[in-house]
Formats: sequence, C-alpha cells, structure tokens
Amino acid sequence: MSKQRTVYCGLVNDELVGQTITLKGWVQKRRDLGGVIFADVRDREGFCQVVFNAENLSAEEMEMADKLRSEYVVEVTGVLNERDGAQINPKIPTGRFELFAESLTVLAKSKTPPIYIEDDLDADEEVRLRNRVLDLRRPKMFNNFKLRHQVTRSIRNYLDNLAFIDVETPYLTKSTPEGARDYLVPTRREAGKFYALPQSPQLFKQLLMGAGFDRYYQIVRCFRDEDLRGDRQPEFTQVDLETSFLNQSEIQAITEEMLKEVVKATKGIQIEEAFPTMTYAQAMNEYGVDKPDIRFEMKLVDFTDFASESEFGVFKSAVSNGGQVKAINLKGQADAYTRKTADALIDVVKPYGAKGLAWMKVTSEGFNGPIAKFFADDNSSNVISERLNAEEGDILFFVADKADVVAASLGELRVNLAKQHQLFDPNALAFVWITDWPMFEYDEEEGRYVAMHHMFTAPQNANPEEVKENPAEALAQAYDIVLNGYEIGGGSIRINNLDMQEQIFDLVGFTKEQAEEQFGFLLNALEYGFPPHGGLALGLDRLVMLLAQEPNIREVIAFPKTGRGIDLLSNAPGYVENAQLSELHLNIRSQKD
Amino acid sequence: MSKQRTVYCGLVNDELVGQTITLKGWVQKRRDLGGVIFADVRDREGFCQVVFNAENLSAEEMEMADKLRSEYVVEVTGVLNERDGAQINPKIPTGRFELFAESLTVLAKSKTPPIYIEDDLDADEEVRLRNRVLDLRRPKMFNNFKLRHQVTRSIRNYLDNLAFIDVETPYLTKSTPEGARDYLVPTRREAGKFYALPQSPQLFKQLLMGAGFDRYYQIVRCFRDEDLRGDRQPEFTQVDLETSFLNQSEIQAITEEMLKEVVKATKGIQIEEAFPTMTYAQAMNEYGVDKPDIRFEMKLVDFTDFASESEFGVFKSAVSNGGQVKAINLKGQADAYTRKTADALIDVVKPYGAKGLAWMKVTSEGFNGPIAKFFADDNSSNVISERLNAEEGDILFFVADKADVVAASLGELRVNLAKQHQLFDPNALAFVWITDWPMFEYDEEEGRYVAMHHMFTAPQNANPEEVKENPAEALAQAYDIVLNGYEIGGGSIRINNLDMQEQIFDLVGFTKEQAEEQFGFLLNALEYGFPPHGGLALGLDRLVMLLAQEPNIREVIAFPKTGRGIDLLSNAPGYVENAQLSELHLNIRSQKD
Repeated sequence: MSKQRTVYCGLVNDELVGQTITLKGWVQKRRDLGGVIFADVRDREGFCQVVFNAENLSAEEMEMADKLRSEYVVEVTGVLNERDGAQINPKIPTGRFELFAESLTVLAKSKTPPIYIEDDLDADEEVRLRNRVLDLRRPKMFNNFKLRHQVTRSIRNYLDNLAFIDVETPYLTKSTPEGARDYLVPTRREAGKFYALPQSPQLFKQLLMGAGFDRYYQIVRCFRDEDLRGDRQPEFTQVDLETSFLNQSEIQAITEEMLKEVVKATKGIQIEEAFPTMTYAQAMNEYGVDKPDIRFEMKLVDFTDFASESEFGVFKSAVSNGGQVKAINLKGQADAYTRKTADALIDVVKPYGAKGLAWMKVTSEGFNGPIAKFFADDNSSNVISERLNAEEGDILFFVADKADVVAASLGELRVNLAKQHQLFDPNALAFVWITDWPMFEYDEEEGRYVAMHHMFTAPQNANPEEVKENPAEALAQAYDIVLNGYEIGGGSIRINNLDMQEQIFDLVGFTKEQAEEQFGFLLNALEYGFPPHGGLALGLDRLVMLLAQEPNIREVIAFPKTGRGIDLLSNAPGYVENAQLSELHLNIRSQKD
Repeated sequence: MSKQRTVYCGLVNDELVGQTITLKGWVQKRRDLGGVIFADVRDREGFCQVVFNAENLSAEEMEMADKLRSEYVVEVTGVLNERDGAQINPKIPTGRFELFAESLTVLAKSKTPPIYIEDDLDADEEVRLRNRVLDLRRPKMFNNFKLRHQVTRSIRNYLDNLAFIDVETPYLTKSTPEGARDYLVPTRREAGKFYALPQSPQLFKQLLMGAGFDRYYQIVRCFRDEDLRGDRQPEFTQVDLETSFLNQSEIQAITEEMLKEVVKATKGIQIEEAFPTMTYAQAMNEYGVDKPDIRFEMKLVDFTDFASESEFGVFKSAVSNGGQVKAINLKGQADAYTRKTADALIDVVKPYGAKGLAWMKVTSEGFNGPIAKFFADDNSSNVISERLNAEEGDILFFVADKADVVAASLGELRVNLAKQHQLFDPNALAFVWITDWPMFEYDEEEGRYVAMHHMFTAPQNANPEEVKENPAEALAQAYDIVLNGYEIGGGSIRINNLDMQEQIFDLVGFTKEQAEEQFGFLLNALEYGFPPHGGLALGLDRLVMLLAQEPNIREVIAFPKTGRGIDLLSNAPGYVENAQLSELHLNIRSQKD
C-alpha cells in the first residue's frame, strides 16, 4: 500500500529533520559505496539524497536498491538526517540533508534514457523534441513552465483586481482576407465551407466592448500559418485585453503596471521608473528598428548633411540619390578588429540590403582605416568626433544607402555588435513604449495602402475626410511595448464610428460589398451605441522567453513544433482516413495539379 | 476632454452622495417630465437614474438630453443625490440615488435596437444570436459571464494553492481513430496531411506526468465534430487536471474540495457533507442512467422476480424473454392524471424503446387503472405497496422490457415527471460520484469491445492477463462526477505500465502496428520511468450553466454556434478563396461525388 508523499524531494528542510517522511521521484543517479547505496532522487522541485543501508532495510529491499537505475520511479520512506559537515553538498539547496531509507518501492522501471536528464544537456534540438517527455524532466525546463505559470497567474490577479472579466471567444471562426494566412477547418455540413482558426480574437473582443463588458481579458491561443522563425510558432499564446472609455495613456498605464507586477512576481524586482516612450519615427531614426533594444546606447547618428559635402564618392552619391549616411560608434573596441575582421562585418549587413560597410578606427593620430583619408581634415574630424562622441580606441561603422536599408543594416549591426561584445547586462529588462505609428504603409506589390497595425485602429485625426486626403501622413492611436529588442505587445484605440471604419476599409481597397461580406457584423454593431474602446495584446511566449533568458520560444512551450510545423513527438500533422476526407467533401490535389 | 469614470452606474452608493461624479454608460430609457429629463443609464454593473435639468445644464446640453434615445452611449458628470422617500425605486439596488447632471457628452448614438435590452426578453434564440452584441448587453447575460469568471478564478486559486501548474498543450495535434469525429486542419506543407483539433489534451497531460510535472491543470478548449444537442457545442471548455502518485480517492477528494470552493465562491454556500458515491451498477439499477439526478427520490424499483409470477401477460413474457419489470412511484399525484393523460406518458418513454407504459393509481380501495385487475390480490398489493412505498394518492408507472430499455425509459420518465411536478428545489446542487465503471462495452455494430471511458484508463485488476480473459467483467478505476442529473466531469487512474497498455489496445482491436502508428510516442514514454498517475476533466460550460440555472450552455458562451454549427453573427463557416484551397492542396468534391 502506497504512502502519501510528505514533501517534494527538492523541498526537504530543517523542520523535517528527525522525522519519518516519504518521497516519490526519479533516480537521478545511484552509487554503491562499499555496500551502502546512495541515490539522488529527483522530482520537479529538486533532489534529495537517499541512503540505502542493510541496517534499515530487508535483504530484498537492498537488492532492489542495488538494481536501481537512472529514471526508475521510486517511493522511499525513511528518516531525514542532517549530513555531517564534510558530507554537505553546497551545490544543491537540499545538500545538507539525506534520507535514511527504511522502505523502498519501485513504482516504475526505466530503460537507459536516450538523453541525459541534466540542465547542461548538449543534445540536438531535434533529439530533444523527439524525446520531449524526458527533455521536460530536466529541472531547467520545469522551471521555465513554473515561471510561465507565475507570469499568467500574476497577470490574472492583476487584471481580476481591476474588474477585468475573462471571457472565452471562439476558436472556430471566419476566415478574413487581410493579415497572415489562416488555418482553415473544413466543415462536413456543407461542401466547400470552412471555419478559420483565429489569428487573434480582435473582433470578438471589440464586440464584447460593444456589448458593454467594459473590461475584457483572455489568455488565448492564436494561429498563423506563416513561415516559421526562431520566435514564431503556428500556434502562440496571447494575453489579450480590451477596455471601454479609456484613452491611450490610460491603457498604457494599466499595461505598464501589469508588466511591473509580472517582473515583481517572477524576478522579485520592483521597477520604480515609468517605462520610457519613443515615437516610431525616433526609434527608426536612432535605432533603425521599430523595436529598439535600449539596454545599450550605440545609437545611429545621421551624417547625411555632412556626407553630401564630403569627398568620399560613395557617401556623396548615396545622398544625391536620395539616400542617407548614418554611423554607429562601437566604443573602445578598435583593438578587437583587424582590417580583415572589420571588413568581414559586411556579412552582417548584406542580408539587409547594404552594399558596403565603411569603418574607421579612432587613434591618437586621428582616424585610421580604408576611408579615413576622406575625413582627415579638421572639420570632418570635429563633426564626426562630436556627433559620435568618438574617442581614442573606438571604431566607427558607416552605411550609405536608401533610408530603409541604412536603418535595417545599422540596426542589425548595432544589436549584433552589442551581443558580441556583451555591451549589456543579460539580466536587464529594458521596456520601452513605441507610439505615434503611421496608420498605413504603401504596399508596392499590391499597389495599395495596407493598415500598419490593423484595420480597426483609430487614427489620431478624428476626421475621416482628412485621413483619406493624406493617408501616408496619418498617425495611429497605436502603441507597441518592446522588451530588450523584442516586440512583446501592441495595441491601439479602435474605431467606434461607422463613417471612419467605412473610410478605412475603403482606403485599404475594400469595396462596400467586400466590407459588408467580411465585416458586416461589425459595421452593423457600430450603429447601436458602440462605446470608445481600445486594448492591447501581449505575446506570452516571447515575454516568458525573455524572462527565462531563453534563446527561443520553443523552450517555454511544452510541446512545440519545428520550423516546418511538425510535432516530432506525435508526428502531427499526418495522413487521415479516406472516410474522413469524404465526410468533409475533400479531395487531395496531386502534386502535379 | 473626457473625464475618468468615478464608478460603475450600478455601484453608486452612500459614500458618493453629495459628490461630483462621472458615469459612462448606455441610455436604458428616457422620460421627459415637464421639461426635466430623466434617463436610466446602464452599464455592466447596473443602472443609475440621471436627471437633466435646465438649472444645471446649458441650453445645448438640454437639447442633447432631449434627443437621447435608447442605447445612446453617454458620459455624464454631476452630483449624486439621495432621492426623497417617495421617489425611491426599491426594485433596483441603486434606487435610492439619482445623479443631477451638470454636463453631458454623447459618446455614440444608436439606431433603435432590434431587440429589447431587458432580462425578460422574449425573442427567438436565432434573433438573439444574430444580434448577439445587443443580446449580451442584457444584465442577465453579463452576470452569466461574471459567474463564469468567478468559477474559473476560484478553480485556479484552489489548484494554484495545491501546487498544480497550468501548462498549455497544443491545439494543432494528431488525428486519432477512436472516440468522436475530429475537426481536421489541412497543412499546406504536405498534400494530404492534416492536424486535428484536440478532443481533449488527454495524452499531453499524461505525457506531462511522464515528464515529472506532478500536478497539471489547464482550462482548455476541446473540439468534437458531432451532431449537436442543447448542451453540446463543436467547441467546449474543459477544466483539465492530472496528478502523479495519487490514487482514485485522493483525486476525488481534490476535485470535490474544488467544487465546494466553486459553490462557495459563486453561491456563498458552504457544502459541509461529503458528496455521496454510487457505483455505476447502482445508478443504472436505481435511476436507470449513469448520471442520476438525486435532488429527488422516485427510484426505479425492480419487480422482475414478482412479475414472472404475476398474471399479467406483458410482464410475464418480458421476464421470460430475459427482460425486466421495473416501476416508479410518483407520490401524491394520482389526481393530476386522467386515464388519457396517464396513457399519454407513453410518448415520454417511446423514444427510449419502450413499447408500453403501464400505470396504476393507489386509492383507498386499492389499485385502480388498466392493469389494476392483475394485482388486486393481497400478496400483489402488499409487495407493490411495500417496495414502492405506495400510499393513497400515488400513481405508479411500470415498464417491462429488455434491461437497457427499462432503464432508459423509466430513467427518463422519472426526470420528466420530477420536472413537471417540480419535485425538487431548483436551487439545490446535488453532486454525486459514480464509480466502478465497466472497462469496456461491447459494440454490436463493430463486433468488438470499446473502452467505456478511454483506452488509457487503468482497470481495477492490475493483471493484464485476467483483464484479457474476461473483459466484459473488468471494472475501471474510473469516476464521474454528476450534478443535478448532468455529468459534469469524469476521470480515471491511467495505465502507467506498457504491458497493460498494449493489452488494452489489443482488446479494443488495434493491431500492434496500428497502436505503434497512433500511440507510439506514448508506448515509448512508458518505457522510461512513467509514474502512477490519474486525473479528471470537468465540463466548464455545463457546470456554469447549472450554477446559472440556465437551460442550455449557449447562455454561458459569449459567441456560441447553432445546432448546425453556425455562428449566426459572423456567418462562419464560410466559403474561402480558391487560392487558399490551392495552397492547401484541396479540391472540393461536388455533391454528386
């Protein structure tokens, strides 16, 4: 008959010393020291050393103890002892204790596991994902999920206290043409009809505001059938919230306080200062990206004015073609680069469209390097030194090209160099708000404007006619929240006015019929007293990844998919029975079709 | 410039009297009493009467007030007053207050809404669903969602305190052949391959136990493509939990305490007594169903032994054909039935296969009714009266047929009569555990055993060989929790032993190859120290429906689907672009195919 567990292995403590307790867990390792058998027993909270000794155990149990192997599941009862000084293992929290076993039950045996159940496992990710059950036994992994739960718990507590109400919205919804590709779900009830899995509950949460729910939240799965990157998955989790009657700064304040609560709950750190705010224009200008990592400086500095006067042809022609010249200063790292290694950094910026990367070192005798000769005069020297705060030992990098290429290239180089030279505290959490987003960007390929945030975002200008007249200049009541160079969330004030919503649909190229067909239910609802409203969505996976200091979101998702959307554990997706397809009125096109 | 809301309309209170406050909400109704305009302003928490008076407002604002119509969204600032005695409206909690408006802003106008925003709305459900945004404005609806949130919040708090960890499992999973029909999600990455939406996270939660997570929960959406009934939806929400190292009674105790917490948090009722437990056999025997409503008695009483000796041919032949005779006693309602209305109750039992329904009234002169003559002797009279506790004024109903027909027919009649005659307190919450379920039922159509709970449920007998020898008799370590005649949850101890799992797959007719193909990842994991584990899942929608005393789960789902799986608001599912189908390698079969 099984006994109840007294305590998790990892939580044995002084109060239990001298008491008879029961532990249940996995054998981490077993050692035989002259007939006394030592086993480290592991559970999700940590380890406890168990001592099997012929004095306390039957011959049968000693034999069992002798046969223990890694990952056997055991139940052990015995007296908890404090170890003698020399025996203490200072590396683990329970290193001062050991359990003298008085009974042993093997609850499950194990073959030799294909991967080591250790934090510093050096296994291929594919092997880990195929053996995810074992991979998740590594203490580090469990701690990631504990952290994730702490995050959601603190978010829920915070929002519950503010009278937010958690409402579930449908997963079987309608496909919409804008945005990313939908995952579709065929219905057997009518040939050719499909549900779509939601890319976000955007419209449903707006409708809940129309319904007077006032403050909504949901921690909800979202789906996008896109090509996957390190921080993307086909399904991801969003902390989704929406409020009525609040303006942008009120919604930002609620979000900011929520994130501070999360940091406090998970890291024990109380962030006192307000998160800095930056306009989209400033972020693009100074950091080259809309999600600046402000844990370090190294801002992009503009030399366009100066470059047009310079004698360096590359700069001059870039400017005369309507381009820009910008630079960053990698402080004090000149000696880290040879001509060859500095030149090699072109590979960092090339994928972003830059055709060249110019650089100069700052020495006691002035600039040094391939382009130094063009800027040897006092004026050049002064302008460059002043704008970039250049001092001896620094190395300066320049890109001259179209504005978007300069931004993307130097933005990437900046982050790349900062990582390489560890220019920031890896424990730092640098939040920043990005505001004043453009309403639209022009899609050259489609020859039309597309909404930069989404089609339900309210412009700062409340006059539909003025927005229509100059869409390129229209700014949105939108805000992103960025952490350590990752966009972790974004939101906006939404349109609650039928005229404006119709105007925006028109601007992005919807006919009245298309707008009605796709969003008739929203347009209809806007006619019946729709309150001012706005909200925000946070990417939970990314937030947890950053708090856990993990390199990708698969480390904080229990059963993630690979870059090709495959679950290596169950081999989903898979083929299905022909009868299933038949019920769904589907045929598979041969690859030739 | 908009002011911040001071308080919800429904929460104005004594402390605010005399203060200048701001309310935001919807105009419920407007009355003009000799130039003074009264409006009831509504928000999610209730109503507040607002008084617009020329003394306090500009001519422009008075004009605006005059033009207010139902469902206009307004912001009103003014001084909260206590009403004079005669003016008090005792029907609403804020009936002692009124706001003297000093400023008015119309935030949104409204056309005349197609449905009344009132609790006692008498509209067709289809009209309500098409106008769901307005329908959800009815106070009753918001209160349902507030209740739902209270339920999930109390469940989360309870489980969090017991060291359960909330882990998200995938929604894009693999299709499995057993159980209900899967919703499929085609992938564009490989023609003919599909994900399936999960019918439950069953295997994932078991794998998390294999991973040592020890205590898991999730409030999670599940999907079943079945024909829908009043209490079914294509997507539904499950409170899913799983534990390691606990036995059946420990898991039941945790669940029971959790449900008591929910009742306490939502109803303020502390249930002191332990939930009663009944075996499956007893439930079927005494109530005719596996989810007995024990708010009232009227148990099924067996007369098979007695009937075989009786002179009533129908009873005799039913028994001699291996059937049963059972009866229920509707106490004190004999006078409620004429011969015609009593005979008409055959319509209640017919759909359950009964070919007849016999009945007798108990009068001061003995039994009365069509079959009374067969049971007029003293012995019959005594046996019947004793077993059914029959007294003057009662009416007795008998069904003679195959055991399953008797059970289903009388089980249904019992519930039907109880509702009709209001034999129970509608506020009662009668929980009951159903235990000792059979492992298998024999599927005549498929000619094989199928798992009654699911294929991962552990039998009470730990010996695979013995289970194999007599599957019909094997009992499961399974338990359902029933509330007021609805199954609100069920669970089991799972198999953590490879031999047993392979045996069960074999018993339900899987070849080794099929088992490997479908569940290889589970079988593999069972080889590496898989702990004893078990859990349970609660149907959240149904639980909330019962707590809200609503007749169907659509009342506690914000955006439900109709019986044909249609979202009447957005008209999902819908047709999609041909390009989408092409990317997914799909053709639609014409209806002729």
